[in-house]
Amino acid sequence: MVNIGFLKLGNLGMSQVINLIQDEIAAREGITVRVFGTGAKMSPAEAADTESFKQWNPDFVVIISPNAGAPGPTAARELWKDTPCIVVSDGPTKKEARQAFEDEGFGYIILPIDPLIGAKREFLDPVEMASFNSDAMKVLSICGVVRLIQEELDRVTEQVASGKSGKELELPHIFAKAEKCVEHTGFANPYAKAKALAALHMAEKVAQVNFPACFMLKDIEQVCLTAAAGHEIMGAAAQLATQAREIEKSNDTVFRQPHAKDGRLLKKTGLYEKPE
Amino acid sequence: MVNIGFLKLGNLGMSQVINLIQDEIAAREGITVRVFGTGAKMSPAEAADTESFKQWNPDFVVIISPNAGAPGPTAARELWKDTPCIVVSDGPTKKEARQAFEDEGFGYIILPIDPLIGAKREFLDPVEMASFNSDAMKVLSICGVVRLIQEELDRVTEQVASGKSGKELELPHIFAKAEKCVEHTGFANPYAKAKALAALHMAEKVAQVNFPACFMLKDIEQVCLTAAAGHEIMGAAAQLATQAREIEKSNDTVFRQPHAKDGRLLKKTGLYEKPE
Amino acid sequence: MVNIGFLKLGNLGMSQVINLIQDEIAAREGITVRVFGTGAKMSPAEAADTESFKQWNPDFVVIISPNAGAPGPTAARELWKDTPCIVVSDGPTKKEARQAFEDEGFGYIILPIDPLIGAKREFLDPVEMASFNSDAMKVLSICGVVRLIQEELDRVTEQVASGKSGKELELPHIFAKAEKCVEHTGFANPYAKAKALAALHMAEKVAQVNFPACFMLKDIEQVCLTAAAGHEIMGAAAQLATQAREIEKSNDTVFRQPHAKDGRLLKKTGLYEKPE
Amino acid sequence: MVNIGFLKLGNLGMSQVINLIQDEIAAREGITVRVFGTGAKMSPAEAADTESFKQWNPDFVVIISPNAGAPGPTAARELWKDTPCIVVSDGPTKKEARQAFEDEGFGYIILPIDPLIGAKREFLDPVEMASFNSDAMKVLSICGVVRLIQEELDRVTEQVASGKSGKELELPHIFAKAEKCVEHTGFANPYAKAKALAALHMAEKVAQVNFPACFMLKDIEQVCLTAAAGHEIMGAAAQLATQAREIEKSNDTVFRQPHAKDGRLLKKTGLYEKPE
Amino acid sequence: MVNIGFLKLGNLGMSQVINLIQDEIAAREGITVRVFGTGAKMSPAEAADTESFKQWNPDFVVIISPNAGAPGPTAARELWKDTPCIVVSDGPTKKEARQAFEDEGFGYIILPIDPLIGAKREFLDPVEMASFNSDAMKVLSICGVVRLIQEELDRVTEQVASGKSGKELELPHIFAKAEKCVEHTGFANPYAKAKALAALHMAEKVAQVNFPACFMLKDIEQVCLTAAAGHEIMGAAAQLATQAREIEKSNDTVFRQPHAKDGRLLKKTGLYEKPE
Amino acid sequence: MVNIGFLKLGNLGMSQVINLIQDEIAAREGITVRVFGTGAKMSPAEAADTESFKQWNPDFVVIISPNAGAPGPTAARELWKDTPCIVVSDGPTKKEARQAFEDEGFGYIILPIDPLIGAKREFLDPVEMASFNSDAMKVLSICGVVRLIQEELDRVTEQVASGKSGKELELPHIFAKAEKCVEHTGFANPYAKAKALAALHMAEKVAQVNFPACFMLKDIEQVCLTAAAGHEIMGAAAQLATQAREIEKSNDTVFRQPHAKDGRLLKKTGLYEKPE
Repeated sequence: MVNIGFLKLGNLGMSQVINLIQDEIAAREGITVRVFGTGAKMSPAEAADTESFKQWNPDFVVIISPNAGAPGPTAARELWKDTPCIVVSDGPTKKEARQAFEDEGFGYIILPIDPLIGAKREFLDPVEMASFNSDAMKVLSICGVVRLIQEELDRVTEQVASGKSGKELELPHIFAKAEKCVEHTGFANPYAKAKALAALHMAEKVAQVNFPACFMLKDIEQVCLTAAAGHEIMGAAAQLATQAREIEKSNDTVFRQPHAKDGRLLKKTGLYEKPE
Repeated sequence: MVNIGFLKLGNLGMSQVINLIQDEIAAREGITVRVFGTGAKMSPAEAADTESFKQWNPDFVVIISPNAGAPGPTAARELWKDTPCIVVSDGPTKKEARQAFEDEGFGYIILPIDPLIGAKREFLDPVEMASFNSDAMKVLSICGVVRLIQEELDRVTEQVASGKSGKELELPHIFAKAEKCVEHTGFANPYAKAKALAALHMAEKVAQVNFPACFMLKDIEQVCLTAAAGHEIMGAAAQLATQAREIEKSNDTVFRQPHAKDGRLLKKTGLYEKPE
Repeated sequence: MVNIGFLKLGNLGMSQVINLIQDEIAAREGITVRVFGTGAKMSPAEAADTESFKQWNPDFVVIISPNAGAPGPTAARELWKDTPCIVVSDGPTKKEARQAFEDEGFGYIILPIDPLIGAKREFLDPVEMASFNSDAMKVLSICGVVRLIQEELDRVTEQVASGKSGKELELPHIFAKAEKCVEHTGFANPYAKAKALAALHMAEKVAQVNFPACFMLKDIEQVCLTAAAGHEIMGAAAQLATQAREIEKSNDTVFRQPHAKDGRLLKKTGLYEKPE
Repeated sequence: MVNIGFLKLGNLGMSQVINLIQDEIAAREGITVRVFGTGAKMSPAEAADTESFKQWNPDFVVIISPNAGAPGPTAARELWKDTPCIVVSDGPTKKEARQAFEDEGFGYIILPIDPLIGAKREFLDPVEMASFNSDAMKVLSICGVVRLIQEELDRVTEQVASGKSGKELELPHIFAKAEKCVEHTGFANPYAKAKALAALHMAEKVAQVNFPACFMLKDIEQVCLTAAAGHEIMGAAAQLATQAREIEKSNDTVFRQPHAKDGRLLKKTGLYEKPE
Repeated sequence: MVNIGFLKLGNLGMSQVINLIQDEIAAREGITVRVFGTGAKMSPAEAADTESFKQWNPDFVVIISPNAGAPGPTAARELWKDTPCIVVSDGPTKKEARQAFEDEGFGYIILPIDPLIGAKREFLDPVEMASFNSDAMKVLSICGVVRLIQEELDRVTEQVASGKSGKELELPHIFAKAEKCVEHTGFANPYAKAKALAALHMAEKVAQVNFPACFMLKDIEQVCLTAAAGHEIMGAAAQLATQAREIEKSNDTVFRQPHAKDGRLLKKTGLYEKPE
Repeated sequence: MVNIGFLKLGNLGMSQVINLIQDEIAAREGITVRVFGTGAKMSPAEAADTESFKQWNPDFVVIISPNAGAPGPTAARELWKDTPCIVVSDGPTKKEARQAFEDEGFGYIILPIDPLIGAKREFLDPVEMASFNSDAMKVLSICGVVRLIQEELDRVTEQVASGKSGKELELPHIFAKAEKCVEHTGFANPYAKAKALAALHMAEKVAQVNFPACFMLKDIEQVCLTAAAGHEIMGAAAQLATQAREIEKSNDTVFRQPHAKDGRLLKKTGLYEKPE
């Protein structure tokens, strides 16, 4: 039995389903998944509270949060540095910062394409927040991000299953730019792939638009207009992603990789095909 | 400080954001949110593991899972019966079963409109699963479900904040049918509301379509065709929900309720309005 | 010459074109079609008036109406029981009631997927009524219902043409659920088929939503909101059906079965193919 | 009681619902509607058969067919000239021909915007035929045609109800071009009206495209391509009509005119308004 | 080096890009393109001013303007009659007028499908004008018009390159009706082609709608409603064209003909193919 | 009479209509517009050829080209420095470079949101080029760019009309970022404005995606996939812009500024309003 722990500090688009993607129909044997989360906040106080989760003794943990360079996630890494640990976050986007993670023994999957929400009280309420996360998940799922992460987590899981542990584990070190993610779509049609790539680029653009809304603008009209524009881009990206998948459906070439009971990745393409 | 615990067993559409909706910009003071989750599985073994979470001492917990009548969620309730506890699930839909919850001291919000996924290995892979959850969240957010739950959780939170505890807390007992949820959309335009109601009804229909796919059909073509049809209905529901919100946007009547720093619900309608 | 009579009592979605589908370009030899209709009403008085149509002496008749179990259609069947007679209706949906039809010598095609309109004065006017029927026809035509019925009527027609008559005729006994109808789409792409199946399920859901609007709710807001939601589901179903056919068009696999002059069903798939 | 007879020879888009539009919820008192139809064909033989319908003694009849100048409809008029009679058709579009109708005592409503179907065996099958009629009905209902006709029929009905009969009745003489029809939409938003007008013009264009496909082209590729183009224009027109109505819905200004029990036309605009 | 001159009088949809289509990536050797334009106006005064352009000495010129029969374009032709000259315009649509051009030695490509804008001050402003031209260009590009013209201009260019000049040049004489244009789409899917043909027919219909708005109607409501309807048809045509290309993209059959450095037309179909 | 000259070197999205936007219905008195263009190319050779245009003696000229810092446009400015001259281009985006223009006496409007086309032979052919320009124009027209430029050109025109000339003219110095352009939409609905802002940001993103495709990538698959993604973003931006305008249409708040005969800008909002 491989014990996989997820520490969720604050919320990234990918946080919504990351603990589900290795066992989509809840029928996989050989893994146990447990999650400890801290809600919307991600300060050092939240990080400190993850300590209690240690008693469970995971074989490896995934720490997922926005901005892994912020104090909270940094404190969490400090706390968990003796457990094999994969950081999933939208940053740091700078190469040296990622190298530092690697040097300290952490694995990472950095997702600049996980979009920054327009987190201002003047604009965001629970409904808008949840609706934005829906759009984010549409792009993350269809455009290769979900599969990229799932394959990496499965790879580490397999190492544990085959007897490795602790420092022996090879952890991923991936800067998952749009171009990289799109390679995991499994799309057969090149225009579907182009649409997916476009959607990812648009998701990344959202951060550029929402960043000033979140941290620089003061005027309420400017804040609301800008954040609303950011969310419109995200909505358009979700539509483009949907359109991409519709193309694959129209050609009956949707590539699927369900997990077998024993955790192996099966494959199928035609809707009526048996996964094998 | 109010301590709010979330126990997530398996995955419901609503599970994705339920721990975020009381603190959408991560700036609310006076509450601490912690989550313990068990991934995709929800057997009694998973339920037993929630024990460890008790040391944190939440003022109340939300137990969210599919089918609250299943053995795992039932075991979890048994374990947590001495803590004020709100069950969030897509069932039981029978009145007596819900009454039994109430009699045992549990609060509940039952969501027949949280759609049943087509959880068959022949059809579902991690990508399809995440994409379906995106569609579910689109309907849940826009069509009133997110707000209904957020308001109920805020109501219990307030009771704790005002000094009540344990059995003193009044917990919600809500069977959240489509007609009830839609009243929480805050929509000004009646056709937008009709579209939201339609989307909720369609989400509920998904369960009727996917149930045989999940539990009765054997032939692989029938399983895949049926589950795919279920997911198509969900996709169409998400589009209808989006269209509903677009109407409100076109009239600049999107109703928003962001949380103030102290947790009060502010209100605004025009995009440029200050929430108050 | 085969004489085919249609008795239309009240209006079903399928009523709009049922007398046209055996002779789509008005060039088929060997059949004569006559229709007697009673407008929107379908009481026993209307049924009684169909008597006059008997003088025409049809080889078989189709009695199409909503709810074949209602007094009017029942009276009509009583009147026409000595003529071979096929009942087309959206109900009865109960097995025993259909068996009773069969026992009495009637053929039937019951269409639970022919949607119930929101027939309340507070909501429905002639424009809304006609627009709803357009949506219904979009689903009925694309999703297999038109073809299913046409093939059954052609089958009976052929029997008459080959010399059978009266009790010798084998009449159809079909409960045309969504799953059955979709098999008559002739779709090559399985996702197109899944969309069609979804559209049919949605059309069936319309009745569940509109039934309380028509017969139970009193409050005008509830009536109008509910009926409007029912019509929104129908509109979404029509769009999904359209999308399904667009997939087939995008693959040049639209299956067509035009009638030859002598009534044989020809077949073609590619748009430029000659029907044969 | 006013007896209203409908004679349907062949099929016009408007034929599908014309006998329903005076009594949309089947609850109107004071009128009796009976229909005699001849299926897809409309030759003099069909016309002759309408004779039997005379025994019913309608106060006035509507003869609806394509091309009222063709031999069949002409024969029907000859047969029915002693009954007050309103011709509904897509032609004749020439003024003199319409004047001749008037001179002979017929009323008429000529609808150049009722689209000509691509009636070639190489292209049209029952499914395509029904689907095209759905698109036609979408335009006819939303863009004012249904209401124009309903109001005219109600006007004649009222005359009978108030004691007039035979030659005393004032029958309509209307050449219902796009510009005239659109005035009956009741649209409040001028762009919605412009879209409706555009849809009507496009519906009229369909005839120009389909005419050569039906009557002049021989090459199968040319026939199929051209007819398919005609049907695409019709589909686009239906979408534009839908979009127009969506605008009115977004402003809660959908104008409705349901019939009261006694046949009076009630009016309402807001969805929740009581018709009065 | 072949010198190609473009004289633009007033604006036709096609005017926007006609001087770019022989050298789409600005890398073609062997041709020099120069343009002289007169803005929105096209009177004889404008025509007279094109004289100055003669000093450049083009091998042949393209005179593009609305209505080539109007005084301005006519004056321009008179001025340029000694240079090989191809007229590109939306008219004259009468055969004799085109024959007259040919008799006078002019080549021509007449585009009845280049849509007439609703050029009334009550309706058109710079934004509407530019937006309409965008829709026009969408149809012109996708539906074969751009390629038809580019191929004809390349053909004349080649003649010059191979040493011919003046009267020796064979100039095109093409009345580019919808049916002709659509043959240049290079579409593999016949329904895509049907949609393109439909879009072209709709573009042509725009002129019929806008003509009275521009030249006959006086009432401001009628002018604005009618011109708005014309522009709606154009918008719908642009969407249909887009949909057509999307079909080709979904099949990876987009036919492309980029120019090689030396001006040869290369060909490719699959997105990843090398043009050859 | 004010003489306005346009020098077009190569092609910018805005090049298509810039010489039309001051005289949208070709009825403005008091200005004469002439254009000299060089087709797709914009090297110093092309720039040199603009010399001939000087004989016309414009009061001011607009030099429009991609990348105003490139050798060709630079040479053109050198040649025209004694004429009042406004540079319109997508760059330079660096502040110092723009300041240098100003210091040399040039006006400028720099449009970072005019999108960079995917100008690679492996991807772009005349059809794709024209279709992309259509999408660009949709965003430029609806999202404020056309109006911003038109107003600035009108402002300079007015100065000439009122007797100023040469160095006396105050020329615009505008870096037209998305935020600035969107202020010229005249949109009443803030969500329409947010959509327009989003579309502009997406148009700007296109350059970031297409730049490597145009200048860095070598592998044909990478080039084609990337350029196709860039064009998909542009297409999505055009759709979002369209959606924005549809909102304004649905509220009958489309702001229009047609030119009066004498060049004054009139204003109107409701479709049926008289411009004043």
